Amino acid sequence: MASFGHGGNAKEISRSNKIDYDKILDFSANINPLGMPLSVKKAIIEGLDEAQKYPDITYFELKGAIGEFENINKENLILGNGAAEVLFNVVRGINPKNTLILAPTFSEYEEATKAVNGNIIYYKLKEENNFYIQEDILDNINSELDLIFICNPNNPTGVITSKDLLVKILIKSNKNNVIVVIDESFLDFIEGNLSMISYINEYENLIIIKSLTKFFALPGIRIGYGICGNILLKEKIEKISPAWNINIFAEIATKTGTLDENYIKKSIKYIRAEKEYLYNKLKEINQLKVYEPSVNFILLKIHIKLDLKEELLKKNILIRSCSNYEGLDNSYYRIAVRTHEENTKLVTDIRNIIEIYKNE
Amino acid sequence: MASFGHGGNAKEISRSNKIDYDKILDFSANINPLGMPLSVKKAIIEGLDEAQKYPDITYFELKGAIGEFENINKENLILGNGAAEVLFNVVRGINPKNTLILAPTFSEYEEATKAVNGNIIYYKLKEENNFYIQEDILDNINSELDLIFICNPNNPTGVITSKDLLVKILIKSNKNNVIVVIDESFLDFIEGNLSMISYINEYENLIIIKSLTKFFALPGIRIGYGICGNILLKEKIEKISPAWNINIFAEIATKTGTLDENYIKKSIKYIRAEKEYLYNKLKEINQLKVYEPSVNFILLKIHIKLDLKEELLKKNILIRSCSNYEGLDNSYYRIAVRTHEENTKLVTDIRNIIEIYKNE
Repeated sequence: MASFGHGGNAKEISRSNKIDYDKILDFSANINPLGMPLSVKKAIIEGLDEAQKYPDITYFELKGAIGEFENINKENLILGNGAAEVLFNVVRGINPKNTLILAPTFSEYEEATKAVNGNIIYYKLKEENNFYIQEDILDNINSELDLIFICNPNNPTGVITSKDLLVKILIKSNKNNVIVVIDESFLDFIEGNLSMISYINEYENLIIIKSLTKFFALPGIRIGYGICGNILLKEKIEKISPAWNINIFAEIATKTGTLDENYIKKSIKYIRAEKEYLYNKLKEINQLKVYEPSVNFILLKIHIKLDLKEELLKKNILIRSCSNYEGLDNSYYRIAVRTHEENTKLVTDIRNIIEIYKNE
Repeated sequence: MASFGHGGNAKEISRSNKIDYDKILDFSANINPLGMPLSVKKAIIEGLDEAQKYPDITYFELKGAIGEFENINKENLILGNGAAEVLFNVVRGINPKNTLILAPTFSEYEEATKAVNGNIIYYKLKEENNFYIQEDILDNINSELDLIFICNPNNPTGVITSKDLLVKILIKSNKNNVIVVIDESFLDFIEGNLSMISYINEYENLIIIKSLTKFFALPGIRIGYGICGNILLKEKIEKISPAWNINIFAEIATKTGTLDENYIKKSIKYIRAEKEYLYNKLKEINQLKVYEPSVNFILLKIHIKLDLKEELLKKNILIRSCSNYEGLDNSYYRIAVRTHEENTKLVTDIRNIIEIYKNE
């Protein structure tokens, strides 16, 4: 596979560290702590026999369900076996010579670019700006560039880029024939008019990427999609994709989950409360700098010499070390927002570990 | 998606022809008529909660299970979201200028080649040879060529190519730096020492492709793999694949199904008997030429002017027209071997339809 530098690899951690897999509290993967909607579980069990047939190669009903959920025309959808496949196919379709990528950000943009031997230019997000994109990103947009990836909110920093700045990026990119991919895979976790989806018909160089697996807690099922108003560009990307790339359970889960309004409301409310709780509790610890979260994960920096991931693993807690993010180092960690009980345990354990190390 | 010329699109047929989807007898998709193993259904239901976590990015256990099933080292495996993704990734990794493809054969080889703008050279299988590959295929192998696809048994003809000829192809290809992909996705349906898997270490230009979804009747779940002794080539192909491309239910189904020896034995026996039954019954109909089947599908040619697919659809039976196969025309059809009851109905319906049309 493309990369092993991700969070969420609890299976491998359990093998290499000889920890019982089921006992690991996984704060390294940014998954909705409420778990898969019950409605989805029921629908999968009821629809089990559908796996005995090929998926509908046109994904007529699936595209209809996503179209309803996103309030877009289903002609604008590019489906993928997870957002990871969508972004790989976008890069394959565009075949960029030069790609602008934020640093730090989600590693698959870089992997996908490397897979087509594209050159990567980093836009370095600065700690002194709390990792916010600045207007000077526009200086990097020129006719030599082919593609820009913007993760919004950015993973792992949680920073949301304003619509104003995104529109400036889109306009300058459009003039220079640069495609702008905005990854909104975590936006469902918060309310507010932050999505750029409504701009797809205005900017023909805009592709939105989304994953449903984080919000609906089904990363094992794999479903993601791109949204693009430029039909020629969309068809270019779809042409290079294998047939039947979405499995039937991803289809069932999407059709069911996107209609489960109770689950959606409850999840947003729960994440809002627990994010605040975790943020405030972590902020009380002097040895940490805690970056303000937007969605369901929190970036933090530790000021003392301590391998927090290693120490927490001894307590069966897995967090994401950010040492392999371009632009971060081993003093940074990313933590998912989980259930109240789990969040409480995490805070206590971090506090206790720091208590031991702080005077060393 | 890449292509709409496949069998198995009962959903779309049901929409466009306004037939109740559940009432369609689908002879167009070559799926084990015994359905998914019960053991697999149970394992999926029991493992439902695993979908809430990311698949193991290294697929350690999944590769182990397939390694056991195929009696190979798991280091030789390239996993894919169905065989379709494996062959797309193989083509992306090799990036061929010139690809030799049988005509007729499975259409995704051509789709995958076109997706990287490769040139296609057809080796035309001749009706007078009952569509068997002849030794003259060797004349097409030269240093201009980069890749050959051989489907064994070939879809839709059912023809099995002898090991002798395959070895000759491998040797001449190796001398000319040509990669040979042998697609054995249907070989599990029959006993006999027909697979070329044991040759992977002898020929570094050999890649075997397999799908488990046909034999284990789970085309909606998506699992396929490549087997390759050439680790450099394997890594080149894996490098361009997105992370987490196998969903958790594909993993569970593979780990469970490949161990279900009763199901495996029963399926092979059942297909053997029903294949013979269907072949013999269809042969009795004078207006048909029926090609000798090897696995779970049968190619036939109709000698009178009649749209057999259209006529059978009126009886809620879906078969595969071969009109869009390179090298075939609208007098050819492919029929899957299904349950005895279904096969009996099919034969009766075909006989009745031909009875009406034969004197027109």
